[in-house]
Formats: sequence, structure tokens, C-alpha cells
Amino acid sequence: MDAEYGTLDRWWRAANYLSVGQIYLMGNPLLREPLLPEHVKPRLLGHWGTTPGLNFVYAHLNRAIMARRQPMIYVTGPGHGGPGVVASSYLEGTYSEIYPEIGLDEPGLRRLFTQFSFPGGIPSHAAPETPGSIHEGGELGYALSHAYGAAFDNPDLVVAAVVGDGEAETGPLATSWHSTKFVDPRRDGAVLPILHLNGYKIANPTVLARIAEDELVALLRGYGHAPYVVAGSDPAQMHADFAGTLDRCLDEIADIQGEARSAGDPVPRRPWPMIVLRSPKGWTDPKEVDGLQVEGSWRSHQVPFANARSDDGHRRVVEDWMRSYEPESLFDERGAPAADIAALHPEGELRMSASPHANGGLLLKPLRMPDFREYAVEVDAPGTGAVEATRVMGGFLRDVMAQNMHNFRLFAPDENSSNRLQDVMEVTDRTWNAEILDSDDHLAPDGRIMEILSEHTCQGWLEGYLLTGRHGFFSCYEAFIHLVDSMFNQHAKWLESTRRIEWRRPVASLNYLLTSHVWRQDHNGFSHQDPGFIDHVVNKKADVVRVYLPPDANTLLSVADHCLRSKHYVNVIVAGKQPALQYLSMGDAIVHCTKGLGIWEWASNDDGPDGPDVVMACAGDVPTMETLAAVSLLREHLPDLRIRVVNVVDLMRLQPASEHPHGLSDADFDALFTADRPVIFAYHGYPWLIHRLTYKRTNHHNIHVRGYKEEGATTTPFDMTVLNNLDRFDLAIDVIDRVPRLGATSGVAREEFKNALIRHRQYIRTHGEDLPEIQDWQWQPASGPAVRTEDPERTTPEA
Amino acid sequence: MDAEYGTLDRWWRAANYLSVGQIYLMGNPLLREPLLPEHVKPRLLGHWGTTPGLNFVYAHLNRAIMARRQPMIYVTGPGHGGPGVVASSYLEGTYSEIYPEIGLDEPGLRRLFTQFSFPGGIPSHAAPETPGSIHEGGELGYALSHAYGAAFDNPDLVVAAVVGDGEAETGPLATSWHSTKFVDPRRDGAVLPILHLNGYKIANPTVLARIAEDELVALLRGYGHAPYVVAGSDPAQMHADFAGTLDRCLDEIADIQGEARSAGDPVPRRPWPMIVLRSPKGWTDPKEVDGLQVEGSWRSHQVPFANARSDDGHRRVVEDWMRSYEPESLFDERGAPAADIAALHPEGELRMSASPHANGGLLLKPLRMPDFREYAVEVDAPGTGAVEATRVMGGFLRDVMAQNMHNFRLFAPDENSSNRLQDVMEVTDRTWNAEILDSDDHLAPDGRIMEILSEHTCQGWLEGYLLTGRHGFFSCYEAFIHLVDSMFNQHAKWLESTRRIEWRRPVASLNYLLTSHVWRQDHNGFSHQDPGFIDHVVNKKADVVRVYLPPDANTLLSVADHCLRSKHYVNVIVAGKQPALQYLSMGDAIVHCTKGLGIWEWASNDDGPDGPDVVMACAGDVPTMETLAAVSLLREHLPDLRIRVVNVVDLMRLQPASEHPHGLSDADFDALFTADRPVIFAYHGYPWLIHRLTYKRTNHHNIHVRGYKEEGATTTPFDMTVLNNLDRFDLAIDVIDRVPRLGATSGVAREEFKNALIRHRQYIRTHGEDLPEIQDWQWQPASGPAVRTEDPERTTPEA
Repeated sequence: MDAEYGTLDRWWRAANYLSVGQIYLMGNPLLREPLLPEHVKPRLLGHWGTTPGLNFVYAHLNRAIMARRQPMIYVTGPGHGGPGVVASSYLEGTYSEIYPEIGLDEPGLRRLFTQFSFPGGIPSHAAPETPGSIHEGGELGYALSHAYGAAFDNPDLVVAAVVGDGEAETGPLATSWHSTKFVDPRRDGAVLPILHLNGYKIANPTVLARIAEDELVALLRGYGHAPYVVAGSDPAQMHADFAGTLDRCLDEIADIQGEARSAGDPVPRRPWPMIVLRSPKGWTDPKEVDGLQVEGSWRSHQVPFANARSDDGHRRVVEDWMRSYEPESLFDERGAPAADIAALHPEGELRMSASPHANGGLLLKPLRMPDFREYAVEVDAPGTGAVEATRVMGGFLRDVMAQNMHNFRLFAPDENSSNRLQDVMEVTDRTWNAEILDSDDHLAPDGRIMEILSEHTCQGWLEGYLLTGRHGFFSCYEAFIHLVDSMFNQHAKWLESTRRIEWRRPVASLNYLLTSHVWRQDHNGFSHQDPGFIDHVVNKKADVVRVYLPPDANTLLSVADHCLRSKHYVNVIVAGKQPALQYLSMGDAIVHCTKGLGIWEWASNDDGPDGPDVVMACAGDVPTMETLAAVSLLREHLPDLRIRVVNVVDLMRLQPASEHPHGLSDADFDALFTADRPVIFAYHGYPWLIHRLTYKRTNHHNIHVRGYKEEGATTTPFDMTVLNNLDRFDLAIDVIDRVPRLGATSGVAREEFKNALIRHRQYIRTHGEDLPEIQDWQWQPASGPAVRTEDPERTTPEA
Repeated sequence: MDAEYGTLDRWWRAANYLSVGQIYLMGNPLLREPLLPEHVKPRLLGHWGTTPGLNFVYAHLNRAIMARRQPMIYVTGPGHGGPGVVASSYLEGTYSEIYPEIGLDEPGLRRLFTQFSFPGGIPSHAAPETPGSIHEGGELGYALSHAYGAAFDNPDLVVAAVVGDGEAETGPLATSWHSTKFVDPRRDGAVLPILHLNGYKIANPTVLARIAEDELVALLRGYGHAPYVVAGSDPAQMHADFAGTLDRCLDEIADIQGEARSAGDPVPRRPWPMIVLRSPKGWTDPKEVDGLQVEGSWRSHQVPFANARSDDGHRRVVEDWMRSYEPESLFDERGAPAADIAALHPEGELRMSASPHANGGLLLKPLRMPDFREYAVEVDAPGTGAVEATRVMGGFLRDVMAQNMHNFRLFAPDENSSNRLQDVMEVTDRTWNAEILDSDDHLAPDGRIMEILSEHTCQGWLEGYLLTGRHGFFSCYEAFIHLVDSMFNQHAKWLESTRRIEWRRPVASLNYLLTSHVWRQDHNGFSHQDPGFIDHVVNKKADVVRVYLPPDANTLLSVADHCLRSKHYVNVIVAGKQPALQYLSMGDAIVHCTKGLGIWEWASNDDGPDGPDVVMACAGDVPTMETLAAVSLLREHLPDLRIRVVNVVDLMRLQPASEHPHGLSDADFDALFTADRPVIFAYHGYPWLIHRLTYKRTNHHNIHVRGYKEEGATTTPFDMTVLNNLDRFDLAIDVIDRVPRLGATSGVAREEFKNALIRHRQYIRTHGEDLPEIQDWQWQPASGPAVRTEDPERTTPEA
């Protein structure tokens, strides 16, 4: 072996030895005595197959970092390679700095080995516990989008991203290669993808390892890359080839960036270099065990042979395998890495395992925030006007953007303008580094609005951006945010796990604006109607999830300001983009959002000693409008009825305080919702969620919820509410049906009024919602929306 | 224009005219008078941009079908092109056959136009209502996987799949190109992808339209295709180019299939032809309106100019645009298509809009089913044994496969064997049409186990396969099925919609087996723990969703048999793959599964007039085991306590009968769960789901649920239950805390016993679950698991 690579090979062998040790051993970590059953873990768990490749790349990246003083982080898509990343960070010293009980000596080694995949220990993936990782490898598909998220706005950083050939088959990964069209070589760092073809998944070969090499190279060129293939299994040859290729790639990256940074517009567009590494699965493990191929086969995927504790033969195979790395030459007397190995890593924060980019909270700076109150909509009277709430927020986001031009990005799947956030284009463009035509609108390589028609890529970019210490905002059609349900799961679990890891610093919250919501899919219809992301989100730990349903523009501004300032949460904001009534002045909105929910006294008439006959609760913009319209009807026609209106912005306030930090105490809940009066609750989403949140409350059996129940079509907004019994007439009928004393006290007979409501609802459905009672309706408690107690069918000339 | 294409061009113009008419008009459908405001719809909704391209392709496919008598179906990824697909099926006559009120005359035309994107009318997508569609275009990304699903096992079929350049950016679409490695040219039909580059999404250009053509061609070659580019906007040239290219592609397909079908093994692997169609977005609409480019820009995406009713200028633009197609020459006096146009389509079922493949229920044959009882596991006594339930089901699936070799496939993201279904490989292989090595295991082009590491592709293939009238089964790790949450949504909505469409015949159910579940992620840990797919599923209409939690192998067999025979549902089965206790003989299993839930009398001791002191309910394999262990503890130590054990297999039985067709009546529910005794419910998933299902029940306030509450780690199975308070000791403590009379009647003092339970739980956590009380535990009500009432810490030598 070339002398240049001798120590590097020793480093690699040490990392491999430490990886195997983690998987198999709980004693005798330096093999200073023969391997006995009690040295082997009783349950062998872990994934070896990808690990030697990850260790190999790590060693070579370190060589390059040291030679170039090039800041890098390491994203390992084949996440099951946890033992490798742990081993490398241990050899770099970082692991012991963070976890002092895992010292650089024999007792430390024993603990290092034992903790792996062991109760109370560490997971088998590159997990939040792993220094240097921003990428949990549990679910596959996000290595490249995370890597690009990390590279954006970090011009000096190179993100080395290993893509496993299993992971490469996932949809999210397959499209994330196109991130090449969204990186600006002037202002962003670079991603160096390393496609690691070791040929096998759990039980099958991989697609990309089994197509002809010219097909593979064409594919990668098609993604915008210049691929270089390093293939083989002989360490000496592989060290030389990989080192040369890596140098070439880093030179090309520097050249692309240098050219772009010295040239003016347009930014030259060149293919980015990348590496294809073909090496055997389980590289350096036994060629054959029990007559079956191990190295280079799927049998190396997890623990190559599982009986090493009880089977003397298998145990001997493990011992021979581990001794093949020559541990006696790799570790000194105390058990610390030999001096040459211990010296073979960059110092301080240049160690990938100690990079502050991989513990983004260290780098997090609060956003400079404009005063959201300055964007307030004037509200002459509650329940008037016609304002697009998200458009108002777009103005606010524009100025957040303007004040945080290197620290904040917007993400949307081609929906930023559709979601009415287009005002941000006054200060920035949409990111685009492919062909630009004269007729194009606000496209530029250094744009900060990230739009690709892939919710997965948007989410992955944003996660990578947040985890490296920046801020962002994701707007999406409500129904299709389910595309990232599983990505949300993983991110929420990452946040939850890192809350318990002291050295991890909090990162900025992941903020979702869900709009184009279920109630306003006038032409998209049934397929675009699903408000269930909220249900999905609230299954995760209360520590890390928040859900807001601001009913109008000023409350949306207040909520958005709060979310952008928060840390380490997932905030879900649901708000409409269509012209809608406004309810609260900015002052009132701030008070209301601070409480999270409250009585709207201006809409209520329940003062007096007896309290309300009924509580009409609402959450969400359309339910709030329909509730107020129902209240208006009832107060006009049943003036004796005492109604309390409660609006809910912060959905988590409904939960018991024991379940969520925002939860109301039972006393406070009862004070708002009463202990014994009927509650008619109009809710934006699936109605049973309100029951799930309130089932422990005193008055739960009296809470009657209306919401979306999968009744939908291509139809008008009003008809959508009718189909789901959330319309003003149904809500009023719910009240009539549930307030016992109504028959006696009302001005018109109960049944007669109810029938009039039913007739009137039908009349509007038949004659279109251009009728003034829908189109021109505004909140006027003293003269509510018309209810024609005569048969409206007979009053219309067309009927 | 070449005479050959003259009529074809007329057909295209007619389809375009009908498409524009659907978007804009509600009167004057043939423009036989000047266009007036009242002829224009008050709300203009729809998507024009992609439509002329879809119409163009449809016309050309018809030409090829007629020339070759080649059966084809048409999958339109750019789903918003609904008006185009509707127009084509109208010109073919199919639309009027299915919807007689939309006749081939002027009144029919008026109705055709008016119903589009209109309340009570049809959606703007290629929806379930659209003849010839198996593909709702609401959510993007599944055109190719649906197309391949349709092509599998249909050797004579060609599926023309238009991929929009917006859709092409999605992850699921990006990876589905690799379906080329899973198609067998001998036994499967072919997919002809037509990548339609019209350049724009809602507001942005598309990535694939803005990379260099050599990059694009390389990408498509990398996917395994031989791409042919047809580009331009001049109709005459485009007709000639497209027709020639289409002929060439169909010839190549025939050649590939012919060669493969006459050759022996190995199947030659050749690139499949495909077409890249570059045409202007909004092709044939006005070049410019109000000084802004329309044709060829994103402004053509939806309704190109929206004021056509109120703005005279805009209305004139629409009128001129529509007249540019020369409607007077395209339709006859009555308003029917001119004779040459009306003749330009294939007859009968060769019409793509009338293909039985696109109404798969017409072709559906029931599976030939082996008798599932023959796979029964012997159960000597309830609560004994150690059986991998899914492995037992694998044997059953093997024989289902053997008897339905052209009609049934398995789908899994590289997890079929991990999920213990490997016995199916005794009768078939894994599908693989890329390089195969001698060392490979059960790979073959005609294998029927479809494995790619993409849940999206598996789901898309399966949907396409089911919607064209076949059967399938999808096994997946429980946590990662969330990857297809949104695809499930769309499929469930498709099923729900087609229930209401008379001419659509029911298709086979989509069956999920979720395994590797939350309680057994011993080495994968927190990231692999999420039982929330059930929560997601039950948000959809009760008509189409079913959820089963069989506790052991025999109940799993019974449930699987039922699901495979069912139609038009989504069935979710959750079952473990690890060795586990068995409870029911096959006879008992059938009775239990038929009821869906019931009292396990052999585990209960509540007979007698007073009924039970407590109901211990359970759903799921691990909860069932822990419940029985708790019952065993309680009956050993508190023999006076009257316990009823209720096991739930069919989760929907818990809902009220008014909410779900499987729901129990309140009387039956009360008979099982009592009206007033505490219920301790051990549930597989998130506990609040049980509350959401039961909140209307009499005894709901007494139901106390334990389940997964996002407490997890890399740890042992028993410790997982402890972390989530679902373990036997916690369940027993729950009983002690909730049965009022316990303190007085029990043999040992209540608090002393409870403390012993707590100490014993901690002892096991500390000393590992190799202890016999965990490892060797089996159900023995007369001598339950040990509880050391002395401090177990003091009894162990290691402590």
C-alpha cells in the first residue's frame, strides 16, 4: 500500500474494528484474551453491511479536510450505519468529550461497545445522540434534501452526503437529485453526493447496482452531475482511487464556486461533481460462513451471523474477523487509539463530528422581526370586511425576509403565490438555477423562495436548513401536506429526542401554513379535501407540537409572529386564503391569541346570573363565520336565548393541562364551556378530534361537534358547509334541538322556526350562493341574516 | 396539412372546442349567436393549460388503435386536464352512453358544458366520474406506477401514460420510472410514457423543461428508456412528427415483446421507447391578452382570463378563441359531431373511454381460495406456544398465489421476507428484470413478489393492479406505511366516489398487512415506532375502511381470508411477526373473528349474578399478552376479583352502529363492556383512538386506555410496554386503583400488593427480560406470573 495511505488504512481498520465491536461485544473489547460466550451480547442487533463503506468515506473526507482546511459535514443516508459514525466520532475524540464516561481507554471501549443497540443505550442509526449527525437514518429518502438544506446560505461548507443504493430507490430521494437546479454557487455551499453502491438492501439487490454502468452514468448526468466511479474491493487500490477522485471533486467544486463568485450574471451552470462508490456490502467481513457467501451479499446487511454467543464456531469467526483488523497494532496499552491514528483527524470544529453546523442550535440567531402590529388590518366592526388573511401575512413575511436575508427562506410546492404570499417577491425571487427566459417572473439563482413541485423536497430542504441553525416557513395546500406525514413524524421524533440530549441546542421551529383548505376547494373538489394533518400531528409528543387556527388576518399575524420566534416546535397554522370576514382589531387579536381561546363578548348575550343557555364554540375561519351567522340568526329570531360564543385559536388549549403544556385547567375550561350547558362546536377539521381533546372534561357529554366528515364535491363554499352540516342553519338547528327551554321562551314556535331554517338552507342550495344572504352577510347581531319563515321557494320568480 | 391528418386535426379541434366550452360556457354552446354575458358561467373554474396536449395525444392514440386494433388505456398524470378527457370520451360516444342526459346534440352539449366544475356537476380532474380513467388527477405523482400496475399480467395491453412536467418533479413519480426493471415483456403489457413538457406549473417553469435537452435525454436513458422527442407548435408538423414517432414506439414495443416471447431465458433487456412531447402550455389559446403572453406561459394553467362574463373585451377574446376552432364545421345541424369526426374512433371496447380495463370491476374474478383452516396452528391451551403469526399466513398466501398465478401479486418495500412471508417463494420469485447473478435468491422477470424500496411505488402499482380488476396484498413496516398516507387518502376517496357511480363496478379491496410494529422495534428504536396509520384510516368514510388486530396466528388467518374475499374496501391488518403466544384454536378463532370482538370466557371469572368487577379489554397481539399476564397476576393474588376479558379483533365494532356498518348497538356494547364497571383497555396504538371510537357509549367515562404514547427507545420488548405503561404490572395496578371494593376483599393488602408489582416491574427492567417470569411466561390463571412480594432486589446475587 502507498505509504500515504498507510495510516489512513489503519484509521479505517480501527473504525471497522470499533464498529464490529459495537455490534457483537460486551466484554474483552481489545481481544486481549480469547473470546468467550460471556463477552458476546446476548441479543445481537445492528447493521454492519453499509458500515465499512461509511468508515472508508469518513477517513478520506478527514484526509481532505486536513489538507484543505475545508469545513464539511457528513450526512449518511444509509442510516443504519450508526456504528460507523459512532466509531469515527470516537476516534476523533468528540465522542468522549460529549460522553465522558466513554473514555479513550479500555473501560471506555467496553462501555462504547455495550451501549450500542442495548436497553438504555444508543440506537443503531446515526441518531440524534450521534455527534455530527443532522440526519436520523431510520426512515430513508432524505439524505440529499437534508444535505442541500444544510448547504444553502453556507458558502464555505461542503456537505458530503452518502446516498445508499437502497435509499436511492425511494421517491423522495429520486427527485431530490434535482436540487442541483436550486443551488447558487455564489452564495450557497456545495453538496458532494457519494452514491454508495454496495448492491443489496435487506433481502434484494438494488436497482442502481444492477443496471448497466452507462445507464447509471446517464441517469446521474441527467440529474445535473458529473459522476466519477470508484469501484473495487482491494484497499490499496481503493484508497488511491478514492483519494484522487475526492481531490478532483473538491477541486471542481472550488472551481465552480470560484468562477461563479468572480463572474457577473448570469451564473454559469455546470454539472456538479459526484462520486459513485462501488464496494462490497459488508466489505472486510468474512468471505463465507457455513458455506454461504457473506461479504458482498445481502447476508451482510444486519448482523452477519447471529449465534456468536452460543455457537463456538460462529464465535471463532467473529474473533478471527475482528483480529483481522490487528487491534493490537491499532490501540495502545491503555486501549486508546495508537498515536498515528489519534492524530489523523482535523482539529476542533473542523472535525465533522464536532461541526457546529451539525448542532445548529449553536449557530441559531433569532430573526430580526418587524413589528407585526404594523401590518394590522383595520376592522371597523367585528364580522365585516373581505380580506385575504394569507395575503396580509405575505406582507409581514416580506419584511421578515428583508431583515433576514441570509437566515430565512420560504418553501412551497409551487404554491407560494397561489397561497397569496406573493408580496415577498418585492424583496426576493424564486430560487432557480436552470434556464431563465425573458418572460419569466421573479426567477433567480439567489432567490429565497424555494419552489419545487415536491412536498418531500421542500420539507427535506427546510429540515436541513433548520437543523443547521436557520429559520424557515413552509406553506402548502392543506390536503397534500399528508405527503410529508412520515417526514413530520421523523422530525418531531428528532425534536423530542434532542430535548433530552443536553449538548444539543434548540433549533428554530418548523412552521407550516396550511391553506387552500378543505372548505374552499371550489373547483378541485373531493380529492383536495383532507383536514387530517392536525390529527396526525397531535399524536406526537405535546412537548413539540402546536396547532393554531386563527380566524382572521390579525390573529394570523399574531400567531405567525409567535411561531417565528419560537424554538424546537412544529407549529401548524391553518388559515384561509380567500376573502373573508374580519373579527378582531389588532389589540383584541393579540389578547385573544395570547389566551389562545376566549369568549367573544361582543357576539355573546349571556351576561346575567343564569349564564348561557348554550355555548357556541368555533375554531377555524369558515366555522367561525358560520357560527356567527348562526348566532346572528338565533339572536334575531330568538332574542331571549342566551348565547356565549367561544373562539379557539390555539387548539391545544382544549386538552387537559396534564396532557399538553398549553392545556387549560379543568376549572378554566369549565368557566368557559360551563359544566352543564350544551356546547355546539363548529370545528375546521374532523369533528372527533375535538372529542379526543376534551373527553376528560366535565361537560364533555354535552359537547356536540360539527366538522368535516368526508362529504365533499366540486361545489360552492356554502354548499360544502351544508354537506357537512356545518352551515349556519344546521348550527342553529343544533341549538334549537339541544336547549331544553327553547320551546317555551322563544318568540316563534320552535318547530316552525326550525322548519324555516331547513327551507331556507335548501332555497340557497337551489338558487346559488350569489343570494345576498350569503354574499353580503356580515355580522349584525341586531339584524341577523334573513330567514324567510314563509316558504322561500314560493318567493322566487325562477322557481 | 397532410390529408392523412386532416380529419385527425378536426377531431383535435373539436376536442379543444369542447374543452374550452366546458370551462367557460353555460349557454350558446355552438356559438350560433354572439356570446353574451349570460352564456358565460358566473364562476370560471378549471384547468386549460394541459388540456390541448392531452387532446392531441388522445387523437393520435385513437389513430394507432384503429390502425392496429391495439387495446390501450390512457392514464393522464396532469389530472387537471379533466375537460380534455371528458371531451374525448364525449366524441367517442361513450359519455352519452353512460350519461344519456348528455346526448350528442345541442341540449347535450349545453349540459356537458354547464356541469363542469359546477355545483352538483363533475370535478375538473380526470375523476372517477370520467369514463376510461383509473387515475384521479387531484394529487400528482402516480401516473407511471398506476400505469405499470395496469400493465402487469395484461400481455396485450399498452398503457399510454402522460406524465406532466409538473408531476415529474414529485418524488413518487421520479422513482416510478424505475418500474422498467419490474416489467416482464413476455407476460406483462407495456407502458408507453409520454412526458409532456409544456413548461409550466401553477406559477413556475418546470425543471425538466429547463434543463438542456442532452441532460433530459440522458436522464430518460438512465431510467431505462429510449426517448423520442417531438417538439413544436405548428399543428401540421406536429401531427406528422407525433404520428411517426408513435408508430415507431408501438413497433418497438411489439418488437421487444415479440423477441422476448419467442426467446427462452434469459429475457433480453432492452430500453423501452417513450415520447417527449414539447408543446406550448395552453396550445391554441390566445397568444396574448391585455398585452401579456398567454399561450406558452403559466398564465394558461387554469382559466386564462377570468372576467369573460363581466368584461366585454375578455368575452370577445373567448369568443374569438372558440371560433378559431371553426365549430360550425365540426358539429352538424343538431349539434352532433360531424360525420368524419364521429367516425374517427375505434369501436366498442377498443375505445379507451370504454375499455373494461378502466372499469376493473367488470373484469374482476374472485380469487380461488384454499381453505384457510388447513393452515391452522395447533393450540394445546390458550396462551401457550411461540408462533410467528405472519409466517403462518405466508403459507396461506403461498397457496393463494399458487392458485391465482395471473391474478394476484404481493407488494412490499424490500420487506416480504423480513415480514416472514418468505414461504411464498416456494411457488414464485421476486420480480426482477435487471442483472441477475448466480448468487441471487429467487429473482426472476416473471416473479410475482413486487419489491422495490419505495412504498409509493408499491402502493401505486397495487392501486393500478386493483383498479384494472385484479387482487393484491401489501405488507409493510407499520411506522413507514405513513409514507403513503396521502395515496391512501386518494384511493379511499376513489372507492367512496365510485360507490356512488352506478356504472363503476366494485374492485378488490386494498389489503395492508402492517407488521414490524411499534412494540417490536428492538434495534430500530424510536424512529420506527408509529401506530398512527389506523388513526389516519378511520378518518375516511366508514363505508370503505376496515381495521383488524388479530391477536394470534389463527385469527390472522381468518381475518386474511375475509379480507382477500372482500371488495371495495381498504383493509388494514396489524399483526406481529415475532414468536408469540397463541390463544385460539381455529374453531374458536373463526367464531371470534366473525363476531369481531368477544368475551374470552376461559380467561374470565366473572360468571355469577354480580357480573365483573372489572373488564380487561385488549386489541393487538402484545396488548393481549400483557392483559392476560395481568389477569393471571390478579387472579393468582386476588382470587376474589371478578375479571372479564374482552378481546377486540375488528376495531370498527367499537364505534356506534350509526357511525360504522360494523358498529355494535349500544345494548350489545353495554352487554360486553358493562354500563358501570371500570374497563382497562390495552390497545395496540395511540390510546385516544379508543376514546374517539367509544365516546358515545354509556360507560365511556369508565374506560381507561393504555397504548403507545410516544415513549420509545432502542430497548427490549418488555421495557417498551413499561415505558408506555402497557405492561402487565401497570395494567394490574390500573385495576387495583380502579376497583373500589378491592381493598376490602383481596387476600393481600391492596397497597402492599401494588407495591410488590411496582418493585417487581423495576426488578425485571434492571435485570433483563431473560428472567423466566418474562421469557417462559404462559397463560395459567391458576398460577400466574410470579410476583415477589418481598423486595426482589434483595433476592438476586448480582444486585
